[in-house]
Amino acid sequence: MVRTVVVHDEELLRSALVQLLRSDAALEVSSRAPGAGLPDRDELPTDVWVVDGDCLWGPGQTHDTSFRAQRGGRLVVLTTARRPGILRRAFDGGALGLVDKNAPARRLITAVHTVAKGERFLDETLSVALLEGAAMPLTTRELSVLSLASQGAPLAEVAARLHLSRGTVRNYIAAAIRKVGARNRVDAIRILQSGGWT
Amino acid sequence: MVRTVVVHDEELLRSALVQLLRSDAALEVSSRAPGAGLPDRDELPTDVWVVDGDCLWGPGQTHDTSFRAQRGGRLVVLTTARRPGILRRAFDGGALGLVDKNAPARRLITAVHTVAKGERFLDETLSVALLEGAAMPLTTRELSVLSLASQGAPLAEVAARLHLSRGTVRNYIAAAIRKVGARNRVDAIRILQSGGWT
Repeated sequence: MVRTVVVHDEELLRSALVQLLRSDAALEVSSRAPGAGLPDRDELPTDVWVVDGDCLWGPGQTHDTSFRAQRGGRLVVLTTARRPGILRRAFDGGALGLVDKNAPARRLITAVHTVAKGERFLDETLSVALLEGAAMPLTTRELSVLSLASQGAPLAEVAARLHLSRGTVRNYIAAAIRKVGARNRVDAIRILQSGGWT
Repeated sequence: MVRTVVVHDEELLRSALVQLLRSDAALEVSSRAPGAGLPDRDELPTDVWVVDGDCLWGPGQTHDTSFRAQRGGRLVVLTTARRPGILRRAFDGGALGLVDKNAPARRLITAVHTVAKGERFLDETLSVALLEGAAMPLTTRELSVLSLASQGAPLAEVAARLHLSRGTVRNYIAAAIRKVGARNRVDAIRILQSGGWT
């Protein structure tokens, strides 16, 4: 039996994914919310975690670090080719499995079994997006500036929080707008968010 | 038998919801993508549509009108209390059922049966959000201006597309920022998007 835990922030979709995985009798499936605490000491170790990428790396999510610190098993991340930022961060974070949310259900079951054996599973439809994600043109600094700005922080606050001058922040933003081919700051934020980068 | 069709833009979650609904033997469940064409003439009429609210009214979605024009049955919309804009638009659009994505799975099944009888189903957790949504402070004009701006259109283009002067567009934006309690334009867009209003 492969002990599998589904992590999704919406209970309805969490139950739906659990039910889908239970159609394979070789999987023992439970679930939890992303923000739920550490597993009990008595709990059996998890073989595979199945996690919605938006719950870990989507806008406004803060579960990333704590979740990854507590997971004792292997990780299958659900996402789409339209979110190269989430793909890239999941891949860099050591996720063995990357499954397209647009794949048929049996692909997810195959992914769980593959990752349970310690092998990598990558949906073909995601590999191009993953490679494109590798070519993310922004520097870490430019991304942090845009990311803070996207949360509604005024320039002065972005500057203060990153210990930069306002002129430098403005330069980072101008560079970011140019690099992602945006028409203005709002457009640059939209492009980064829809790609799953902030 | 209640003929139920699940509409979700991601195949994996679509299958998962279908499987969940099939646990009730009194439901005959199929599914389709939001952008799929009209049902075949020979197809039996649908009793209840189960639709993810983000697929119809989420950012960048254009299925709203065509989907609603073609649906021959009754509508159950899945959403959360954090998206009063989607709740409000679903309610105003005539959806009989509003189910919280954080509700247990059996609530969805109850909702489908209730709506199939032509009765209204509203999750308690959503009713407060729906009432708050009624108090949306922006005028339609202010919302259109912010909505176009959120797609990255520069002020001049927003003005041209809405046949307004640039000064008027600036005034609408200033009023919107003040009314939603935002710190600037980016913050106002963030607030409206996270509430499901644009």
